[in-house]
Amino acid sequence: MAAVMGDPGLSKLQFAPFSSALDVGFWHELTQKKLNEYRLDEAPKDIKGYYYNGDSAGLPARLTLEFSAFDMNAPTPAHCCPAVGTLYNTNTLEAFKAADKKLLLEQAANEIWESIRSGAALDNPVLLNKFLLLTFADLKKYHFYYWFCSPALCLPESIPLIRGPVGLDQRFSPAQIQALERAYDDLCQTEGVPALPYFLIKYDETMVLVSLLKHYSDFFQGQRTKITVGVYDPCNLAQYPGWPLRNFLVLAAHRWSSSFQSVEVLCFRDRTLQGMRDVTHSIIFEVKLPEMAFSPDCPKAVGWEKNQKGGMGPRMVNLSECMDPKRLAESSVDLNLKLMCWRLVPTLDLDKVVSVKCLLLGAGTLGCNVARTLMGWGVRHITFVDNAKISYSNPVRQPLYEFEDCLVGGKPKALAAADRLQKIFPGVNARGFNMSIPMPGHPVNFSSVTLEQARRDVERLEQLVEGHDVVFLLMDTRESRWLPAVIAASKRKLVINAALGFDTFVVMRHGLKKPKQQGAGDLCPSHPVAPADLLGPSLFANIPGYKLGCYFCNDVVAPGDSTRDRTLDQQCTVSRPGLAMIAGALAVELMVSVLQHPEGGYAIASSSDDRMNEPPTSLGLVPHQIRGFLSRFDNVLPVSLAFDKCTACSSKAKFTYSEMRES
Amino acid sequence: MAAVMGDPGLSKLQFAPFSSALDVGFWHELTQKKLNEYRLDEAPKDIKGYYYNGDSAGLPARLTLEFSAFDMNAPTPAHCCPAVGTLYNTNTLEAFKAADKKLLLEQAANEIWESIRSGAALDNPVLLNKFLLLTFADLKKYHFYYWFCSPALCLPESIPLIRGPVGLDQRFSPAQIQALERAYDDLCQTEGVPALPYFLIKYDETMVLVSLLKHYSDFFQGQRTKITVGVYDPCNLAQYPGWPLRNFLVLAAHRWSSSFQSVEVLCFRDRTLQGMRDVTHSIIFEVKLPEMAFSPDCPKAVGWEKNQKGGMGPRMVNLSECMDPKRLAESSVDLNLKLMCWRLVPTLDLDKVVSVKCLLLGAGTLGCNVARTLMGWGVRHITFVDNAKISYSNPVRQPLYEFEDCLVGGKPKALAAADRLQKIFPGVNARGFNMSIPMPGHPVNFSSVTLEQARRDVERLEQLVEGHDVVFLLMDTRESRWLPAVIAASKRKLVINAALGFDTFVVMRHGLKKPKQQGAGDLCPSHPVAPADLLGPSLFANIPGYKLGCYFCNDVVAPGDSTRDRTLDQQCTVSRPGLAMIAGALAVELMVSVLQHPEGGYAIASSSDDRMNEPPTSLGLVPHQIRGFLSRFDNVLPVSLAFDKCTACSSKAKFTYSEMRES
Repeated sequence: MAAVMGDPGLSKLQFAPFSSALDVGFWHELTQKKLNEYRLDEAPKDIKGYYYNGDSAGLPARLTLEFSAFDMNAPTPAHCCPAVGTLYNTNTLEAFKAADKKLLLEQAANEIWESIRSGAALDNPVLLNKFLLLTFADLKKYHFYYWFCSPALCLPESIPLIRGPVGLDQRFSPAQIQALERAYDDLCQTEGVPALPYFLIKYDETMVLVSLLKHYSDFFQGQRTKITVGVYDPCNLAQYPGWPLRNFLVLAAHRWSSSFQSVEVLCFRDRTLQGMRDVTHSIIFEVKLPEMAFSPDCPKAVGWEKNQKGGMGPRMVNLSECMDPKRLAESSVDLNLKLMCWRLVPTLDLDKVVSVKCLLLGAGTLGCNVARTLMGWGVRHITFVDNAKISYSNPVRQPLYEFEDCLVGGKPKALAAADRLQKIFPGVNARGFNMSIPMPGHPVNFSSVTLEQARRDVERLEQLVEGHDVVFLLMDTRESRWLPAVIAASKRKLVINAALGFDTFVVMRHGLKKPKQQGAGDLCPSHPVAPADLLGPSLFANIPGYKLGCYFCNDVVAPGDSTRDRTLDQQCTVSRPGLAMIAGALAVELMVSVLQHPEGGYAIASSSDDRMNEPPTSLGLVPHQIRGFLSRFDNVLPVSLAFDKCTACSSKAKFTYSEMRES
Repeated sequence: MAAVMGDPGLSKLQFAPFSSALDVGFWHELTQKKLNEYRLDEAPKDIKGYYYNGDSAGLPARLTLEFSAFDMNAPTPAHCCPAVGTLYNTNTLEAFKAADKKLLLEQAANEIWESIRSGAALDNPVLLNKFLLLTFADLKKYHFYYWFCSPALCLPESIPLIRGPVGLDQRFSPAQIQALERAYDDLCQTEGVPALPYFLIKYDETMVLVSLLKHYSDFFQGQRTKITVGVYDPCNLAQYPGWPLRNFLVLAAHRWSSSFQSVEVLCFRDRTLQGMRDVTHSIIFEVKLPEMAFSPDCPKAVGWEKNQKGGMGPRMVNLSECMDPKRLAESSVDLNLKLMCWRLVPTLDLDKVVSVKCLLLGAGTLGCNVARTLMGWGVRHITFVDNAKISYSNPVRQPLYEFEDCLVGGKPKALAAADRLQKIFPGVNARGFNMSIPMPGHPVNFSSVTLEQARRDVERLEQLVEGHDVVFLLMDTRESRWLPAVIAASKRKLVINAALGFDTFVVMRHGLKKPKQQGAGDLCPSHPVAPADLLGPSLFANIPGYKLGCYFCNDVVAPGDSTRDRTLDQQCTVSRPGLAMIAGALAVELMVSVLQHPEGGYAIASSSDDRMNEPPTSLGLVPHQIRGFLSRFDNVLPVSLAFDKCTACSSKAKFTYSEMRES
């Protein structure tokens, strides 16, 4: 517990070093700072700790860092002394190990020495209690490596004890002790600080006076060969002072050894015992002041903390076990995302992605893959709509289902998909609606029950579209896409549509219509469309989002029943198994790219020709459509204009739909 | 139970129709035939059923179709009569409903009528018991729709009963009955058939004779106004004959009504009661033979079976519940694959894909997605190797893991991945090996324990590569790919390699070296490499598989430790979440395409330039590499030659490795 200074022997002063006490809150906050602020920045950071002189006997002298350590303006806890430090957080374990501990210590020692020489430490004694903290945070495992240092300047020789140490109550009368307490408290109050790390003392039988260091020349006026100082002492040991005294003795020797031969030190310890204040375990002793008034060079320094094994080395704390698993999962998922921002895409606005609310219409092959990719992007709000049950052929291609889900007729897909997302990541807000999407060409049974059901389904669908930001159309029929496309168009929601052939797919964003009246300027920027855009080869260049077509724009017929009279291989979408994964992933990546564009869904559509140009977002192009051909491992990026008589997105279609709704 | 013919009334003959009895085995076999043989072929198929005349009282007269129905050479069960029918299996429920039942019945009736007129039915009476079966198999739901028809020609008028019906024991003495049994048995044995559907009878107090229909003129010699016939009767009712008599009476009327006025019918029923043969419940009656000797036209016919509700309509049997769920899952998964072959890629050789044994080195983001795609393709043998444990950030990106797998330090990935595959599809043969892959540049600790461990890991890896057909390299470091690449090259295994950047990926097949000596001609076809291939613009055209490079061929440095001294964002592969899904899916699709090529891994590599050419396989191109750029939604297909000093695949590297192994 006690570090030996100079020659061993009872007559030489020894000091109890600080034990670093790094709270879980400190590591948590370091994690947040690292992820959100420091990222790859390894520059030293100011941090703040504190120590306390009222601990029960047996506790080590601790320098505590907690949640508040990163806020230099955070208040120091009552009756505690602040300590200001420097954090060196490295990006790698290798950098942590390779850090030049000697140099860091020397630098800190020099700063302390300079504050002593300049007198700054007299004005602000906190400068004497500097500390260093070298860290590496393995945020994948929640292993934190650290090495703490409280630099102490070494006096050129060991310090002979002249008297003591003895308990304060062996030197001071109860009246003197009471006077000391009052004087100390008054000075704290005058200064507006919770504690005084160092102070000057004058006393006799009748009175005890205390003063700030900076007033030493007035205060010491009339003293002869000896002065008395007080130090706020975190140590509990009867024979040894704590670490903070060390640099103060260097200051004393430097400042006052030319005038005084010895210094009496009162290690002020101030605890509450059984409801009563007790400072009697404070110790007092006298030492010879070493002669160092004229030495200009910084003394050598010590201070790196020993590790748990008692050797010189770093410590590691593994917090993976004691953290709440669900919170761990959340922060781990966040980490993977934030890593993207650190170096690769510093301008990536993750919040735009993470906060988006996605409605997935269809929880089949595409729906499952889209949901998985959304989870990977950290999207927390995912809602499924499907009316099918899980069949035996589904799990091998629909990655949210398992064999067990197929038994007893199969669970409803939408509900099972939402459940699975919760199992994958408890932090997700996933819901499922087991309902049909009303379709043109599939006549509802005109009994009142099913008509009523169809009306409720339309209303529910409208509410769902309203409550989300992005609508994914992932069904396996054309016509089921129609009503959601119309509703989403009327509500100006971004629509991402994906559809599969056998080895081809289309992934597209629907054109996003201009808002009707007010606010049009904000939401729908005007684009400089060159006259040439309407003619010749660049017919499809620079088409803004509000002019883009939807899935139905190239149709000349109204959607009908495409499932009737189809053979088995036409009924289900028979596709190469890899296709849905690719299309599902691209659908989400397209959404993310569009969200990153400052104009969102109104962004000008990128085409294949734009592949060689400067991309419009940090993530790249924002195409209108991606058409993939797996047999050629090729994608093309066509752009098409909205059709003004489109059955889904034209104003006529929306007018008809609105009329229909109102009737 | 009894169908009424002509005027109702006790004096008119009525017949009990067949009930179709379609066994689960029949539907199972139909499913197999549909998937593997008929596919989209709707042409009528010959099938075969049977009926029995020994049922206990109370059972309906059944025409049974079982597993064997599709094998026209399958033996008819003992004591049963065969019935030959025609299967009309439609591709859609609509076609099933729209089938022209009247026409089908008329066609069958005409065939029966022609067999009567021509005399063919006399030689082969089975022709009188024709049946039709119209089916639609919904193989996604295991719902089977069917409509059965046993066509019966109608006599022009109702048939007046002259005598009976009475039980045989009221007409025949026990001796006569015994004589009948013996005569019938002898004839069956002589003819080598399990039963006789129709036969002729002559009897008096002393004897009973039976004969085949074709011998009628000799047999009926000397008969006056009445003849006696026997019919193998599946009906149990005391008052009514079963359906098979109907067409026989038409034959009798057509053939014999000019010579005889009436026919006595013995409905032969032949059961075992308490261990004793019993034919006494056979019935016998006499009817007037209708006059139709000279009518040339086919009479009208009836015969479509009523459904369970007693109306004219099809029946449906839902077998999804009663089939073994695991077998159901297997056949459902097969179905989805087989659907591809039916119309889209008839030349697809699924067996090559389904039977391939895949070794996945790495069970992380890529490994999980590759495994999922392999499952979609029906691959049944998948082995994982990984030494990592599942961490909290994994499940949202690694689609074989869930939150629960992360608790208590995390399950080993390889084992958890294999378990998950079983949960998805119990028919898969999935294994996991929680082991490290020895890496150059990561020095083993030279204590004997870890050296021994490393040696065991190398041996295990060699055994694993040996035991599989395709090796997927899906790790997150360069150097871990080295040893498996060397081993796979030396064992001539197809290697598929996938690696991710932030928004770029490479998916490639390694070049497959020529086998050393014998069999080279079989495995490694020689390609006509034009001289121009080595020069100028077509340097990378027509490069056969054995000349292609591996992952390490473009390296100038040996693989070292790429994880040391990397920052957090470099340590884990930070990539856009959709990237691994795309690359994983493409890795499998590339493998499948290569397997479809007749030369497999030796196939000439397709390049981007080949996109407009005729593809070399039914699935398209077989590139060497697919390099993807997600920011541009673009893929290119580079081709590169093997480097003769490559650290992994050159003969030098393999020589060094072999030497190393032996030392």
